[in-house]
Amino acid sequence: LTLIVAIDSLGAEEAKGLTRSLCTRVAGFKVGLPFLLANGVQFLKELHGACPEKLWVADLKLADIGHVMKLVASSVASSVDAVIAHGFVGVRGALDELKEYLNSLDKKLIVVVSMSHPGAEEVYDKALPNIFDVVVKLKPWGVVAPATRPAIIQETRRSFGQDVKILSPGIGAQGARPGEALCAGADYEIVGRLITRAENPVASAEEVLREQREMLRRCKGWR
Amino acid sequence: LTLIVAIDSLGAEEAKGLTRSLCTRVAGFKVGLPFLLANGVQFLKELHGACPEKLWVADLKLADIGHVMKLVASSVASSVDAVIAHGFVGVRGALDELKEYLNSLDKKLIVVVSMSHPGAEEVYDKALPNIFDVVVKLKPWGVVAPATRPAIIQETRRSFGQDVKILSPGIGAQGARPGEALCAGADYEIVGRLITRAENPVASAEEVLREQREMLRRCKGWR
Repeated sequence: LTLIVAIDSLGAEEAKGLTRSLCTRVAGFKVGLPFLLANGVQFLKELHGACPEKLWVADLKLADIGHVMKLVASSVASSVDAVIAHGFVGVRGALDELKEYLNSLDKKLIVVVSMSHPGAEEVYDKALPNIFDVVVKLKPWGVVAPATRPAIIQETRRSFGQDVKILSPGIGAQGARPGEALCAGADYEIVGRLITRAENPVASAEEVLREQREMLRRCKGWR
Repeated sequence: LTLIVAIDSLGAEEAKGLTRSLCTRVAGFKVGLPFLLANGVQFLKELHGACPEKLWVADLKLADIGHVMKLVASSVASSVDAVIAHGFVGVRGALDELKEYLNSLDKKLIVVVSMSHPGAEEVYDKALPNIFDVVVKLKPWGVVAPATRPAIIQETRRSFGQDVKILSPGIGAQGARPGEALCAGADYEIVGRLITRAENPVASAEEVLREQREMLRRCKGWR
């Protein structure tokens, strides 16, 4: 399974309905900070309970000292399997503490190595070699690299081989087509509004899965 | 007034009591993501109501695309005067959208240019010239630079003159003494646990203010 659905733009009840409907079809769900602040961490626990066997990712884009990131992670840890933090905060006194804490709870760390918006070229991209060094030292379970920039996904896969999962947002509203990131080497595509704002979200998710298979058939041969 | 109290490590009722006690003594209050997730955005409104005339800063360390940062900011905007985001995410499609949104609400943007932990040397510091470029383009109301690293505060002040407020965390638990950042050129010192975990937080805040005056007297002459 290669699809993670970002449910950030939904209301609480919609999110729960969609989570139930898609539970057997997808690899997991991603919940962002706007959703958490709007609905509270208690509701996340309820939502997680609607499909607990899949991969739940808290997309908090943590970027603080270790002490603060651990506090934030602790407030969602019982309802998710993985937490996203930014590679640019570095290892010592930041991601090392977060990773050790998540390990102790048997939870996964996912590190952002690149972003999808134009402003990513101003600072983030220029720091890519240093952020790759952070990934080498830290050995997180996964990294985030945007579907809109397949060259960075390819470089990430070349650099880390199969030691790291690659999760790619940016499909649909941000411009990439389903399957493009998978073809570049990603393990999961994160799709939000293309599914959650569709008239029929379940049908839209099925269509995304079909497009992923079609694209993979063309780029890699049937698998 | 030069002291902003970070109330992150307090429980809800303690925070409200301390806010009332310190309201006349300090420049403002800073609330972080752990506190917000633990107590909810509704409680922040209540807390703000206990001392609405001072500067309230939401220390969310936002680091996402513009669309997401605006959503998060919208959930706290009515209870704060300023929001902290990371310079690392760049201007286009990120901080430009956030700043425009905050401007439309007559709220302030504060941009992190440097951090206090050892891992900041791994990526963040190397990107400092690019982050300064972001500040030049964006012209935020304020920037965050750590009290533990006075050279960066001095460089920030030299680069931007009086066009930007400098807020400095890192006093107490992280090692800097009250007044050190002010002497280096900061406008505000952000102090958390040194006050909030003291047996008598109000007395501790008074002592911090006294130390600030003493340090300023020595470094700049009485003012």
